[in-house]
This record gives sequence, structure tokens and C-alpha cells, in this order.
Amino acid sequence: MTSSEESSVTLKRRDLFRMIGSVAGGAAMYQAMTSLGFAADSQYAGPIKLEGNPKGAKVVVLGAGWAGLVSALELRNAGYKVELIEYNNRVGGRAWTIRGGDTITDMSGETQKCGFDSGLYLNPGPWRIPYHHRGYLDYAKRFGVQLEPFQMINFNSYVHSKDYFGGKPQRFREVQADFQGHVSELLAKTIRQDKLDQSVGKEDQEMLLEALKGWGALDKNYAYVAGPTSAERRGYEVNKGGGLMPDPVGGQPIALSDLLKSDVWRAMIFGQTHQWQASIFQPVGGMDATPKAVGKVLEDITTFNAKVTAIQQDEHGVTVTFVDSRTGKEQRQVKGDWCVCTLPLTVLSQIDVQVSPAMKEGMSAISYAAAVKTGLQFKRRFWEDDDHIYGGISFTDQPISQIAYPNFGYNRPGKGVLLGTFAWGEAAFGLASMSAADRVKAAVEQGAKIHPQYKAEYENGVSWSWHRSPFTMGCAAEWTDEQRTKHYRNLAEINGRIVLAGDHLSHLSGWQEGAILSALDAISRLHRRVVTA
Amino acid sequence: MTSSEESSVTLKRRDLFRMIGSVAGGAAMYQAMTSLGFAADSQYAGPIKLEGNPKGAKVVVLGAGWAGLVSALELRNAGYKVELIEYNNRVGGRAWTIRGGDTITDMSGETQKCGFDSGLYLNPGPWRIPYHHRGYLDYAKRFGVQLEPFQMINFNSYVHSKDYFGGKPQRFREVQADFQGHVSELLAKTIRQDKLDQSVGKEDQEMLLEALKGWGALDKNYAYVAGPTSAERRGYEVNKGGGLMPDPVGGQPIALSDLLKSDVWRAMIFGQTHQWQASIFQPVGGMDATPKAVGKVLEDITTFNAKVTAIQQDEHGVTVTFVDSRTGKEQRQVKGDWCVCTLPLTVLSQIDVQVSPAMKEGMSAISYAAAVKTGLQFKRRFWEDDDHIYGGISFTDQPISQIAYPNFGYNRPGKGVLLGTFAWGEAAFGLASMSAADRVKAAVEQGAKIHPQYKAEYENGVSWSWHRSPFTMGCAAEWTDEQRTKHYRNLAEINGRIVLAGDHLSHLSGWQEGAILSALDAISRLHRRVVTA
Repeated sequence: MTSSEESSVTLKRRDLFRMIGSVAGGAAMYQAMTSLGFAADSQYAGPIKLEGNPKGAKVVVLGAGWAGLVSALELRNAGYKVELIEYNNRVGGRAWTIRGGDTITDMSGETQKCGFDSGLYLNPGPWRIPYHHRGYLDYAKRFGVQLEPFQMINFNSYVHSKDYFGGKPQRFREVQADFQGHVSELLAKTIRQDKLDQSVGKEDQEMLLEALKGWGALDKNYAYVAGPTSAERRGYEVNKGGGLMPDPVGGQPIALSDLLKSDVWRAMIFGQTHQWQASIFQPVGGMDATPKAVGKVLEDITTFNAKVTAIQQDEHGVTVTFVDSRTGKEQRQVKGDWCVCTLPLTVLSQIDVQVSPAMKEGMSAISYAAAVKTGLQFKRRFWEDDDHIYGGISFTDQPISQIAYPNFGYNRPGKGVLLGTFAWGEAAFGLASMSAADRVKAAVEQGAKIHPQYKAEYENGVSWSWHRSPFTMGCAAEWTDEQRTKHYRNLAEINGRIVLAGDHLSHLSGWQEGAILSALDAISRLHRRVVTA
Repeated sequence: MTSSEESSVTLKRRDLFRMIGSVAGGAAMYQAMTSLGFAADSQYAGPIKLEGNPKGAKVVVLGAGWAGLVSALELRNAGYKVELIEYNNRVGGRAWTIRGGDTITDMSGETQKCGFDSGLYLNPGPWRIPYHHRGYLDYAKRFGVQLEPFQMINFNSYVHSKDYFGGKPQRFREVQADFQGHVSELLAKTIRQDKLDQSVGKEDQEMLLEALKGWGALDKNYAYVAGPTSAERRGYEVNKGGGLMPDPVGGQPIALSDLLKSDVWRAMIFGQTHQWQASIFQPVGGMDATPKAVGKVLEDITTFNAKVTAIQQDEHGVTVTFVDSRTGKEQRQVKGDWCVCTLPLTVLSQIDVQVSPAMKEGMSAISYAAAVKTGLQFKRRFWEDDDHIYGGISFTDQPISQIAYPNFGYNRPGKGVLLGTFAWGEAAFGLASMSAADRVKAAVEQGAKIHPQYKAEYENGVSWSWHRSPFTMGCAAEWTDEQRTKHYRNLAEINGRIVLAGDHLSHLSGWQEGAILSALDAISRLHRRVVTA
């Protein structure tokens, strides 16, 4: 069998699974998949095929973020008449990039003018594309958007705990190697003292002991101590040189107790987690590149600056009422046979939407996570020149939570913009209540605990708090398991002539892929209803 | 104190340490450094300053690899007359890039013409630049060479053991998560059974238990099992979807016993090791970019195609004899006051070099590692399209050892070149004895066990075995501790009017940084001798 035959079989299998899934539900689909030894690393099944004639049906799509863009694009490709209604004067929604010269205003009325130099930017919303977000990757490929690696794990970045190590940031490599080393030493000791759980056979215990020695960088006595073996992981006090330079010297590991008390070990988990594992990417030049490319081909059917105020339906169609989002005036209406509504639940729960009580209850039940991002421009890239951190993220237990370094233009002279804050959920509450000016100030002050160079090198900053965002009023839906059981299906199912879509109706809340998959699923179901009507 | 004041103090400290090191030796330097709380993540102390007048002295530099380029560049900058003699018709030595149209011939006389498409290449020698190789990074910066991330860890790449798992490659993420999970579960069990070594206090034991739960992705019963928690690390059987797509499903972890027997756990160590930790880079377009940029400014003093046959010295100077490397004819001589000789020990031990018996003994004592690299061009980037591997490395216990995916041009259509073999040391012995044609054939056959698409998609290949390389006769010096004690200083010290340099005279054998640091150290000592004579 040639490879191309093989991949066509794979594709057919996927279609089959998708079909089984739609007809008989997820459990049946999973059974069919696993019985054929097929693991679905993504539920994206390749470019969508909406077969059958929509017979001139018109769909009004609300919101030109990812879910709206995908819905409008694919429905139009399938032969529908489509109108796309967007609150902002741009597409992309949270998939947005702020650059020098941009003016942004939040719900408090505070306006910032971004002062970044050309080529520098802040992605205030999503900033990463994992390798398994295949829907996104496919749209990026189809629209020719160039990607570059996002460095999630940087062994030389800092892990900072304000109350430990005298406030001095530790290197990620030290934390990582030392924790893994101590754990390996303790388990090796357990094996050598013959205290290991007897579920592990003798032969396996011996192999495990050798594996722990290698993995944990233990010395010949199975100890994790200062010396050449641990230095090969945690780095050197005096690094390897040439000629008659001094011999390399390894440093003293951080005590296990200090790693535990300070909580710095938590920094290791991010880069190992499925949504953040390498390889993971960013579009070259800013996150808005991909939605912009999609939005460009939809320009003729897009209405910008339109704030939806009501969504009504009857057995004949849907009527959407909107006003000019800049003035709140000039009420207009658009009608369609169907509506794909991708507005966030925060917005939907505050406007007049004619759907079932169960769906309305769901709209109000789900709260949105707070999130704050702050970009800071500096005169020089001191994190590279002085700290030798090229891309990636430093972690701190201060409210700013993270400092992320630019993943492009490495090792070059000139200015740079850091992500000086990425606070999410509870950590963001305090910052979210501050003005943008104060958030920038806090980012500089807290960041200076990790990089003292901040004070001398800082030039300007811009900050976005998603709870103050007029078009989302929050960052991303935070589902509890209980809420998902009670409300998810009510929100996701087609309600009369209206279907909702967006990352909030996915298992990937806050991710662009969630919006894409949600939209593909929603329009597939909508289309089936239309063509079988 | 402003940051620029701070860095100038740092520089002075470094000069001080370097001075202490040269005068009183490494131990004293280290003492001085650590007493000031200064960890030397690199022994590169910034651009070299060779102060003092060389009074018209002339230096003959042999070899235009990194050590020779740096020596020639910096000595000329310091006012020396310099001649640079090179065997090949290009600079860079092993820092080399093979592209379509290149013709290469090895010592066996076998000639290959590379058939790669434009923009695709193989770096047959070094291919990575770690963040702490500051000498290299500084030259790259000074000469404006653009760098891009090399993806050392890719969680979605394969780990393959030919005799286990029915020969089916496992995903790195599964191996990594499962090993860490099993280890965490076993140590958690030890703690809960109160069998942990009593060196860990009760409070620490409780914190460790919670840390193992988080780090190891254990469930609420401290078990590493199939389910949502482990799936968040090892990936899903059915990944998270949107709308009414099936719910996510986690897969069954690989049993600890299978991870151990198959040795697949070893793949985890590479990316955690200091020389390979992220961030790590490659020059855009090929590894030869940086040496080419340096070599360009030395063109007027470089003689190419010159095979050194003898190096003689007396109290007045050094005489180097060479012939045309292409014909073995046209014997010529060049004279200088001093000689910086960067030829590999494999070459030096076979020519007439007039140095002390101790140095000559050292030249013959050190053997060079074998290494084989093979580049394979394919019709399409199936590793991205089908396997969702974007950059990084797959590991196998077959002789090819590694398959490395291109770290550029991600997610785009078109052809691609894989590194289809990177065999080093013992693993390379078998391949090294084969012809290039057979090595390419072996790479395709063995690689097809991991990527069945090889057979249908393969177009052409090129292979380089360093033991057959006429200008190095091996890949890199392999020092034992014993040899280093006995021979290193004898080889590195100035011998009359000759000083040796190169990665072989460093603690970074096989790395460009080793060559750079060795050269900087050698010319510093040479210069001191010249100006204090």
C-alpha cells in the first residue's frame, strides 16, 4: 500500500468516525475508533465538506472572531448567503495584536495609545498555537500564514518566589534538575533499602534503579549532589571552557525542602502540559495575522462597528437588531433564515435573545475568567544580553505571574517588548481592578524584582484587562464539571433557527482551536438540518 | 547604580577572574569568583582585548575552522600580520552546510552530488547553538547572522524501540508523562506507607506528596492511571473538541516495566542536558552562515586548497610547508614568527610537526569519535501533514539513532529534507564503514520503520561519514579523564613558537564554542608572550 493510499484510507476512517459520532453519539464513535486502533489526536477531520444544496438559505453570523470567521467562510463556500456582523472595526475578536500607534479604549473609558516601536507588539489575547490544534494549523496553511516557534520551556529562564531564596530568582534548569534529582535519589534509596512497593518485580526494580540514576543525574552512589553529573543538567558554577581556562565546576543543588516550601517546582508543569507542550507556535508578526487573512476574503459580507442589541426568531427566520457600536445609535436590522451566534455568553446574557429558557439559563450561568496582559517596551534586550534568556517565560508568585520574552529577533541589537504580565483567573483579580496606567506601573515594579534592569531601561507600556473589554466583558468561559453537565448541551444544540458557537462551547475554552472546532461542529449540524429539511 | 554601570563592573570582575586564573590557576579563580557570588555560566568574557603592541610579529594560522577564523580575526585586529592556511576551498571546517548542486568527495574517493531542492540543506557537522555558548552568540551578533530556534524537545516526536511495542513508535509525550507518572506514584506510595527515608521531615513529606501529585499527574488517590489527569500530559485518545463533538478520552499509560525494558526512557535525557537545553538555536539557512561571514573579512589573508605537510620551528620562527590539497603537488612554504595550529589531532599525528615529545605523544593518544549524518529529501513534509511533528527529533535504537525534522518552514506545503541519520560514537561504527550510497539506503530502510511514508515519498539523499572526511579523519576528540590528566596541558601549552587550538583542546569537544574558547585562550597566552618578550 502506498502512503497516499494509506492517508486516503485514514481520511475515510475519520469521515466514518465523524458520521458514527453524529448519528450515534460520542461513546459509539469512540468505540468505533478504538476498535480500529485509531487515536484522535484532534477532532479536526480536515477541511470541512458541507455536501448538499442549501437552496438559497441565508445565515446571519454574529461576531467575526474565529468562530464567526470560520462559520461565515465555510457556509458561504457551501453556497449559503451569509452576512457577518462584528462589534469591533476589525476581525479576530480576542485573536488581536496591539502595535505602536494603536488607540484602545476599555469599558471604564480609559484610552491608551500604544507607543511601541515598529515591529514590536503585544498579543493581548491568545498567543500560542499547539501542534495538535489542527483546525487552526489548517486555516493558517490554507491562508499562507507563516508560523514561528513559541518557546514554552526555557531552561535558563527564571522561577521567582518573593519570599524565598532572599527574593533572588532561580534558574528553571536548577529547579527542574534539582527536583527531578531529589525525587530520583529518594526513590533509588527506597529501592536500595528494599522498601519499594512489591508491585514492582525484582528485575524491574534493578532497571528502575539504573534509570533513576540516568534520569535523575545521580552520582555513582545514587546520590544527587554537587558535581559533574548534576552540573550536566542544572548548569555550572564555572562553565566548560577552552585551552587553559579553569576547569568546569558544578554548583550546589537547591535543597528539596526549599523547592517544596517556595512552590517553585510548579513552574515545571506548564511546558509538560498537553496544551503547552512543544512544538507550539505563534504567527510571525502577531496573532492577528491569521484572522486578518481569513477576514480579508469576507470583507464584502462583513458589517463592522455593529453592536447587537436583540436576536429574535420565529418559524420563518431570524431578525438581528444592532446599533453603531461607537455611538449606540443608528438602529438597523438584518434578517436571515438561520443565525450562527458567536457572541460571548457575557454579552448574550445581557441582550434580548429569543431562545428557550434552558438556553437562556445556560447563558447566565457561566462566568468568565479574568485575565490581564501588559506589554512593556525597553531600550535594549537586556534579558538576552545580560541574563541570556532568549524567548520563553519566567514565572513569579507576584500578581504579574509571568514575564514572557519575545520569540523572534533573537541575539540582535535594538529595543524589545516583553510581556510583563500574564495574570489569569484568581491571580488577575487585583490587577483587573486597576487602571491601565496602574497595571503598567505594577508590571514594571514587580518585574524589577526579577530583572533590576527594568528601572533604567523601561520606555513605555500598554495593558489590557479582559474584564474591562467592551466586546467580551471577560476572557474565557470557566466551566465547572457541574455546569457542563447541566448547561453545555442546552447551549450547544440548535435552538429553533439559532445555533451558538465559540470557544465557550468547546472543551478548549480560551483557545482559538475551541472556537474553530465549535464552529465546524455547529455549522455541520445546521447544514444537515437545512439540507434534510 | 544604572544597569550600564552594573555591566561594566561585571566586565571588570570577569577580567579580574581571568587574570587570577592565568596567574594562579583555575582553583584560585574559582575561589575568587564564588567568594564574590559570581557564577560563570560561560567563560567567554566578551569581545577579546589584546592590549599591547605586537611589534610587527607575524602569525601563521593553520585551519580556517572556527578556531582558525577567530585566531586570524582577533590577531589581525590586534595588529599582527596574519596568514591563514586552509585545506578546503571554503572556511568553516566541520561547521559546514551541504546544498543542492554541491559535490562532495570522501577519503574513499566516493563522490556524491547533492540533489536537494533550493532552500533545503544538510548540516553534516554541528547543527545547534546552546544559549550559553556566548562566544558563538557574540560572533553571530557581531557579524549579523540571524538565528532561529532549534527544537530539541518535541513532545509529539517518536521514540522507537525495534524490539518492543511491536516495533510501533511511541510518542515522546507518552514516554515522558508515563515515566514521570510512574516514578511519582511509586514515591507517593512510599511516603503514604511511611517508608520514606527519614532524612526528609514530616512536613516536607506532606509537601512532597502534593508536589508528586501535581508533577506526576496523579489522580486523587495518588495513582497514575488512564483518565483526564494523565491525559493532560500524555495526550488524549480522543482529543478535546467543540460543540457536540465526542467528549475527550484519555488513553492507557505504558506500563513502567515496558518503559524500562525498551529503554525508551533514555530519550528524555537529551533535552534536559546542559548542552541541549532550550533555548538552543541554528543559523537561518545553514550552519555555514556564521563562519562564512567571518571568513569574508579574512579573504585577503586566506590561502585555500592547502594541505599542510610539515610544521617546523627554531628560535627565530616557524616554517609551514604545504601542497595543493587537490593534486598533492606544488609544494610551498610560509614563514612566521608564531604559529596557531588548529588542525585536528588526527591530521597532526600524521604529519611532520616539530614539537616536544610530550606534545607529540598527546597528538597520537587521543582518538576521534565516529559520526554519520544523512540527509533525505522527500516529496512532501509528511512528518508534519500526517504525523504532526513540527521540528525536533525522533529517537530509535536502530543504527540511524535519530531522525531530525527541519526547524523552519513549518506548516507549509512543499518538499522537505530530514536528517535521516545522526549516529555518533559506537552507534556510528557500522554505518561509518559503509559507502555513502549504502548509508543513504540504510537511512531510508530504518527510517521507514518509524515513518512508513518514506518508501513512497523519498527522492534523494546525501551522507557524510566523519571518519572518511579527508580534512578531519574523524568527528571530534574523545577524551577520557585519564588522557585529559596526562596530555591536555601538554597539548594546550605554547610549545616553542607553536600553540594548538581547536575544540579538541577544550572541555567542549565537538562544539563550535569549544573551538572559539580554545582559540581565544590560546591567542591570549600567545599575545602575552609576544608583548612581554
